[in-house]
Amino acid sequence: MKRIYMFGEGTKEQKNLLGGKGANLSEMKTMGVPVPAGYTITTDMCVEYYKNGSKNSKELLADIREYTAKLEKETGKEFGSSTDPLLVSVRSGARVSMPGMMDTVLNLGLTDVAVEAMIEKTGNPKFVWDIYRRFIHMFGEVVQGVEYDLFAAVLDDLKEAKGYDSDLLLNAEDWKVVSKAYLAIVAKATGAPFPQDPFTQLEMAVNAVFESWYSDRANIYRDHNGIDHTWGTAVNVQQMVFGNTGEDSGTGVLFTRNPKTGEKEIFGEFLFNAQGEDIVAGIRTPLKLDELNVQNPKLYKELADILDNLEAHYKDMQDIEFTIEDGILYILQTRNGKRTAAAGVKVAVDMVAEGLLTKEEAVASIDVFALDQLLHPVFNEVALANAEYVTEGLAASPGAASGKIVFSSERAASLKEETGEKLLLFRKETSPEDIEGMIVCEGFVTQLGGMTSHAAVVARGMGKCCVSGCGALQINEEEGYMIINGKKYPELTPFSIDGTTGKLYAGTIKTKAASFSEDFQTILKWSKEIKFLGVKANADNERDSLTALSFGAEGIGLCRTEHMFFDDTRITDVRRFIIANDLAERELALEKLLPHQLKDFTEIFNAMDGKTVCIRLLDPPLHEFLPQADEVDEVAAKLDITPDRLHRALETLHEFNPMLGHRGCRLGVSYPELSVMQTKAIIVAAINVTKAGKVVKPEIMVPLISTIKELTYLTEFIKETADALIAEAGIKLEYKVGTMVETPRAALIGEQVGANADFISFGTNDLTQMTFGFSRDDAGKFLKDYKAKNILDSDPFAAVDQTGVGQLVKLATKSVQKVNKDIVVGVCGEHGGEPTSIEFFHNTGLDYVSCSPYRIPVAIVSAAQAQLKNRR
Amino acid sequence: MKRIYMFGEGTKEQKNLLGGKGANLSEMKTMGVPVPAGYTITTDMCVEYYKNGSKNSKELLADIREYTAKLEKETGKEFGSSTDPLLVSVRSGARVSMPGMMDTVLNLGLTDVAVEAMIEKTGNPKFVWDIYRRFIHMFGEVVQGVEYDLFAAVLDDLKEAKGYDSDLLLNAEDWKVVSKAYLAIVAKATGAPFPQDPFTQLEMAVNAVFESWYSDRANIYRDHNGIDHTWGTAVNVQQMVFGNTGEDSGTGVLFTRNPKTGEKEIFGEFLFNAQGEDIVAGIRTPLKLDELNVQNPKLYKELADILDNLEAHYKDMQDIEFTIEDGILYILQTRNGKRTAAAGVKVAVDMVAEGLLTKEEAVASIDVFALDQLLHPVFNEVALANAEYVTEGLAASPGAASGKIVFSSERAASLKEETGEKLLLFRKETSPEDIEGMIVCEGFVTQLGGMTSHAAVVARGMGKCCVSGCGALQINEEEGYMIINGKKYPELTPFSIDGTTGKLYAGTIKTKAASFSEDFQTILKWSKEIKFLGVKANADNERDSLTALSFGAEGIGLCRTEHMFFDDTRITDVRRFIIANDLAERELALEKLLPHQLKDFTEIFNAMDGKTVCIRLLDPPLHEFLPQADEVDEVAAKLDITPDRLHRALETLHEFNPMLGHRGCRLGVSYPELSVMQTKAIIVAAINVTKAGKVVKPEIMVPLISTIKELTYLTEFIKETADALIAEAGIKLEYKVGTMVETPRAALIGEQVGANADFISFGTNDLTQMTFGFSRDDAGKFLKDYKAKNILDSDPFAAVDQTGVGQLVKLATKSVQKVNKDIVVGVCGEHGGEPTSIEFFHNTGLDYVSCSPYRIPVAIVSAAQAQLKNRR
Repeated sequence: MKRIYMFGEGTKEQKNLLGGKGANLSEMKTMGVPVPAGYTITTDMCVEYYKNGSKNSKELLADIREYTAKLEKETGKEFGSSTDPLLVSVRSGARVSMPGMMDTVLNLGLTDVAVEAMIEKTGNPKFVWDIYRRFIHMFGEVVQGVEYDLFAAVLDDLKEAKGYDSDLLLNAEDWKVVSKAYLAIVAKATGAPFPQDPFTQLEMAVNAVFESWYSDRANIYRDHNGIDHTWGTAVNVQQMVFGNTGEDSGTGVLFTRNPKTGEKEIFGEFLFNAQGEDIVAGIRTPLKLDELNVQNPKLYKELADILDNLEAHYKDMQDIEFTIEDGILYILQTRNGKRTAAAGVKVAVDMVAEGLLTKEEAVASIDVFALDQLLHPVFNEVALANAEYVTEGLAASPGAASGKIVFSSERAASLKEETGEKLLLFRKETSPEDIEGMIVCEGFVTQLGGMTSHAAVVARGMGKCCVSGCGALQINEEEGYMIINGKKYPELTPFSIDGTTGKLYAGTIKTKAASFSEDFQTILKWSKEIKFLGVKANADNERDSLTALSFGAEGIGLCRTEHMFFDDTRITDVRRFIIANDLAERELALEKLLPHQLKDFTEIFNAMDGKTVCIRLLDPPLHEFLPQADEVDEVAAKLDITPDRLHRALETLHEFNPMLGHRGCRLGVSYPELSVMQTKAIIVAAINVTKAGKVVKPEIMVPLISTIKELTYLTEFIKETADALIAEAGIKLEYKVGTMVETPRAALIGEQVGANADFISFGTNDLTQMTFGFSRDDAGKFLKDYKAKNILDSDPFAAVDQTGVGQLVKLATKSVQKVNKDIVVGVCGEHGGEPTSIEFFHNTGLDYVSCSPYRIPVAIVSAAQAQLKNRR
Repeated sequence: MKRIYMFGEGTKEQKNLLGGKGANLSEMKTMGVPVPAGYTITTDMCVEYYKNGSKNSKELLADIREYTAKLEKETGKEFGSSTDPLLVSVRSGARVSMPGMMDTVLNLGLTDVAVEAMIEKTGNPKFVWDIYRRFIHMFGEVVQGVEYDLFAAVLDDLKEAKGYDSDLLLNAEDWKVVSKAYLAIVAKATGAPFPQDPFTQLEMAVNAVFESWYSDRANIYRDHNGIDHTWGTAVNVQQMVFGNTGEDSGTGVLFTRNPKTGEKEIFGEFLFNAQGEDIVAGIRTPLKLDELNVQNPKLYKELADILDNLEAHYKDMQDIEFTIEDGILYILQTRNGKRTAAAGVKVAVDMVAEGLLTKEEAVASIDVFALDQLLHPVFNEVALANAEYVTEGLAASPGAASGKIVFSSERAASLKEETGEKLLLFRKETSPEDIEGMIVCEGFVTQLGGMTSHAAVVARGMGKCCVSGCGALQINEEEGYMIINGKKYPELTPFSIDGTTGKLYAGTIKTKAASFSEDFQTILKWSKEIKFLGVKANADNERDSLTALSFGAEGIGLCRTEHMFFDDTRITDVRRFIIANDLAERELALEKLLPHQLKDFTEIFNAMDGKTVCIRLLDPPLHEFLPQADEVDEVAAKLDITPDRLHRALETLHEFNPMLGHRGCRLGVSYPELSVMQTKAIIVAAINVTKAGKVVKPEIMVPLISTIKELTYLTEFIKETADALIAEAGIKLEYKVGTMVETPRAALIGEQVGANADFISFGTNDLTQMTFGFSRDDAGKFLKDYKAKNILDSDPFAAVDQTGVGQLVKLATKSVQKVNKDIVVGVCGEHGGEPTSIEFFHNTGLDYVSCSPYRIPVAIVSAAQAQLKNRR
């Protein structure tokens, strides 16, 4: 078993064994990049350390001696030497970066003897005593657990005594005094003299790094970031190089490209005669990298060549630390650089132009989770830093907006007309009747509801921002104010909401507009060429259809017909249908609705010329269309019935668990005439649009089946109606009939479904609700506790639960495809626009995903990345 | 391919091929029982008939000739003979009896020639002309489709002309006139003379029988009884024998034992010189069978011997038709006799004593679906026949009761105390607060709710009858009346309800008490010896536990703790817990509840000495414990808080879909202190009862998990609490921790569950709700349409849905058993007491079922029958 790797012995692929830092140092060494010499103790050794009861094996200790000897040989220096002592840094390095979470020791190897030798060698006693006192402090605190305050007090006392107001004023003698005092502090605190044997120092430091893997902050960080606790950290032991040995030295950090814009330019900061921490500390103002070019063009050229080399090698923009010691350049670290979404897109496209990346590699490099930044407005960072945070809820629809708060949709509509001001709608929850208000507002906040509540779904469809499930809200609609954490905010208070983070702020915050750049378009074009999955949109009207098309939708995967029913021009006839006493009355009401639906579908078919449009028959329970109790009198008058009769209808239709009640295909089974009317509207619209010269591909979808007979019963009505109309029209029109798979049972009877449907579409919202037994409208309350107690890794309404819900999706897909080779399988739940879910659906063998129009670009790139990971 | 079987060529096992009647006739022939000769055309020929486009193949027609020749040879008679003509009956006979649904032709073979020959041979022209006119009428109507009225008119005219007031008065000449007139009618109606070739008659009759398989009434009957439409019918062609040739002849029907009581006695009716239809017609009063013994002891002895022979052969009580022609006994049909539940039990036990059956065969012979009759009161049949039917709902809990109607539980309680009268509770729905009223009433009817609604579950637990989901009810509680189909019934109107059929009657109906006889006890004893599955009870208190034990329960499979929370002495502290502001307030409330729960569990453990008791932690959503809106002021006063605060709590806890809301283990995750308190109560009670010398086997069940971490999170609290208490007590006490599998996801993560639970129990009520997406409280509305439109074969809340829900049960059982060989797997949903479900659970590999106490006997016998069908 190889316990230690000299830099150069490993490769960048060995991150699991060597940690990210160690693997990259090895890689760079092999590439010929000037890296200070060193070695990496593997992560396996950390695991072994804990297995042994927090002890390193004799074998490892022997290997450390052996590899240190190699290091001495490579550097020509020697541990504890009285002429040319070797100093090293000892740093942690896990598989993934955990910045600041684990321990580091610098300047290790310094002893009383080594200090004298260094002074002799450098002729710079101030520098040497300075690094000695730094080392004693760091080692004492990090490795030996001596309190920080003890060290700080000594320094403060001395500065006070001498009248210094800055560390920069201390001279060599001062630092020597401090060093000696520090040695005494450690001796007193630990009951033993400060270790003067470099190997003892080294072994202690390695243990300290291993120990820091399970430090509280590291544990919390891993919990928070979903990092496996069992991985362990590697330890990198590396020769020290110093940027502060004189004006010929220096240190800097840089990105190989501009991380905000993606422009190809070296972007970084630099200081002569300084250490890394001086740049961070901000005491001296760092220089732009250009200054290095002015002062030392040769060295700048050397650096620039190395950067090109590293970019070409890593095929990505790099984030680099470097040091110049006495005119010699060392690269201390390289890693892929973090960047804004816009920069990520530009870098990827540019690198293809530069021949560094293939199109596939460019697409694979995109951080899909960040793309939302480009599709929606975001708050200006500086303004945001100064904003007054109030509370937060669920990040239900991305984007940022400021505006004056209102608490009812009518109020929003009238205010907008009067003043034209930007408004934000705050509601306990929204219902389809709020549509008018939602159209005029910039964004929505609801007290109740989750990621798939009405407000969330509508917001995503409109591309507006939304924060849902914001439990701290107490809204008093009548009196026009809300209370959050005891503070009252009256109507028209300026507020800002961020649907990407779920956070709410008081006051107005400057926003940056969305940037659907040409580079982004290029990435989308390439992604489309690569991807296997179809990407369709959930859209219910002409406007959303056009938006979807502009983003690249290949069809409509879900057209919900209920949204059409709430329109003022129709709701009365919908209600007439609901309160009808018999079939004749119902058919009369449906006859009036028919022309409206016909118009809806005609517009959508026109917009979607040549592309599939999948229309779901009416889904929600009928009581959703009836008025609230306080509007009964008014509505009854409109319907020309007694309020009593309407009250009775409300009572009869009341359900304890509407989610599991009389809805979906169950409505069609009870009232086939409703499905017949909708079929008529769809097919007649399709016939008319076809006659007008366009290509219409209608798909009729039966919702919420749990038994096969529900599907076959309604399919008979649908086909009979459609075939008669098509025959009468005398044209050729193909249509499909399929079903949603959104109850667990529908997924369990896949073979029956496959044999009776032209297509299926997973409704993963409802499927998630029923598989978990979580109501999306109520789960907010306990999911908070679940997150706090680490019961759920992620919100199953945001990313599809692959273990449970996914198992049903897999099972059903396999079964329907087994019996019906031509069947088309899609998904139209909210998960259809979420990257990890899209990868799962790709791997599961689905044909397409469907999502809100504004998610289409994310879905397209995600689908391409899924194909690149796992070719279908 | 053998198309036709002579009687004697087949066996009783060949019902699928020969039909029930044909198979038994063949069997009897082989046994040596005197059966008129004949043959059976197989059901395959019926299937082929339809495959050929409603035509018989040439091969079959040839075979009919061949087998008719065999029949002629066997009988010594000949088709169409002018000396000794062969007459036959042509009857349908499907796999299962479809009485009266298909066609029959008697006396076939009669022609003008044959009539003369018969007169010559019998010297009885009246008899011969009578059967000729019967044949022409039957053949004309059944085979040729001539209208009944045409025949009836001729007979009526003749009777009127002659002044006869009965058919019995017609003489030979009259019948001859009628016969000739009938021939003319057929000739006119069909445009061709009545067929005078017996083979033509036979072929036409066979076709008619085949055609009648798909007659409207047969189709409807099969739909209604779940009989496969593709089976087809066999056709039996059999020599005619006549019981009406003189005083030496006769006909009768009998059971080999008394079908009402099960007593061993020949039980039947008999007429000399008569045909079968004369017994049914009721014109003449039939004689008891004893009379045959008096008049012809030799023949009676012959008959009795045959009966013994048949009973021994069929190992069951027989239902037999016989005919005596000129002193010769013929058995026309035998089949297992229908009987009452009580008779079924007695016959089975007696037959074991008589050595006819083994205990296993006796248990297998029991009709478990009828056993409810013995466990609950039933209406007197005669009284029921005269009762005034009003409406019906779901048969939610078996039994029958009469009483005066009341509409609120308080009213019931106070009326009962005042008058002591029998009462029936009619409610829109019941909730745990109705318990007091439910205790004093004889039975319950609810407008809403299904087979597993609160009313239904409580009723079954109490052994009272209940009709739920009775949609026609409109109850006005305030004004004290209800309206059903427009008729008003004020409070205290006498009513009767039948929970076995779901029917409601106005007025009082006499009831017969339950008869839990000694024979029934014997069957239960044998069943227990045979069965593999454990049978436990769902019981929440001492009373139910004792009832369950008296019926043979082997433990408690589900003790619901929420019922204990509603008691007046506790509800206030429960509410204090709910409205608490913080942990300290919650713990204060829980401390007060602890002694109550301790008492509950102590009583149950005492009663269940030595048997397992599985206690489910609190399951329902908390708002169920809060008052209705109109009681807020009063309750707030009791709690010493403002009504406003209580209103806020109500609002905060309101859920859109409580079934999928904050309940089950989700409460425990939010408030682990609640689970800790319940664990304390369980374990302290167990310790105390153990110390008192009894054996306690507590099982703690975590409800409604959908992720494994919910279980592991709560198990940690439970074990920590329990282990500390047991250690402190210094005794040995073993307890188990397990979980309900009632969400689809819990069933899908079986391996994780198996690795973390000592036992699992399927909650098939909730599992059914979530798998179908049916709310049990709301499904009543649309399941009615589903039944009417034949979408669902059966109510999935009554018998477990083996295709969907069952698939999850199978999957989970296999997974948990794979990873945990010691795991105990049970079911505690209502399906645990339903015979077809029990067989499924047995076959699936479960260890036990748990059901309401009053279902225990049914479950025990069902479990034994499952084991006999499929040994484990």
